[in-house]
Amino acid sequence: MSTTDCVFCKIIGGSIPALKILETADALAFLDINPLAPGHCLLVPKRHVQGILDVPADLLAGLTAPFPKLAKALLQATQASGLNILQNTGESSGQAVFHLHFHLIPRIDGDKLGYRWNAGAYPSGEGERLRDRLIDELGG
Amino acid sequence: MSTTDCVFCKIIGGSIPALKILETADALAFLDINPLAPGHCLLVPKRHVQGILDVPADLLAGLTAPFPKLAKALLQATQASGLNILQNTGESSGQAVFHLHFHLIPRIDGDKLGYRWNAGAYPSGEGERLRDRLIDELGG
Repeated sequence: MSTTDCVFCKIIGGSIPALKILETADALAFLDINPLAPGHCLLVPKRHVQGILDVPADLLAGLTAPFPKLAKALLQATQASGLNILQNTGESSGQAVFHLHFHLIPRIDGDKLGYRWNAGAYPSGEGERLRDRLIDELGG
Repeated sequence: MSTTDCVFCKIIGGSIPALKILETADALAFLDINPLAPGHCLLVPKRHVQGILDVPADLLAGLTAPFPKLAKALLQATQASGLNILQNTGESSGQAVFHLHFHLIPRIDGDKLGYRWNAGAYPSGEGERLRDRLIDELGG
């Protein structure tokens, strides 16, 4: 998708309205139009990048810098007791807009949100094999 | 919880074993011992901080810097088609270890993982009210 077709680029450029709450040199935060909880917001880089795989280091640092300030404001403003920060990469992960974004989702006890948590365990030796494979991919 | 009681501090210090895959000046990544999917790993700051609310700016930048490299390696090593990055703040969010950590969870189609996605909409005026409240909290 080109930046001219990107809904988040249009929000950044002002041609699509959004309820903006924070803007820095690198990042913009605005309320998700279809919130999972009151205050659910998106934090996006102002420069178009598709996702976490192709974000330059300086932009990533600038994008994530507001996490603490934004998280505190969300808890104060919504009186939520917690929050999830969620980033989706690829369609299988739930990514729907291919402009990098982090969701910040306020949480309260019993809200029926959250990650489906079906934890398993590695068969004997499989964790070690995967660790070695990952270290190879990471360049040793 | 003090750092001496913290399981992630013990992993960082080496007194509890873990399958470590990446270490930088600020951060350590290791395989989750109870993975939601093969390759599910945790990225933690080497310095103890409880969560996203109290992480200093320099440590946060150092902690998030490996996201692209780690994400690419996970997709290559596991042949997953996507991944979620997830951070939990507070017990209501699912946080169980009070040492800041990001989950990186490889995803494939039909894996039954993912965030419970029950999107709503703001009643008329409520989004604007919340936006104003958040801007106040952000000192805007």
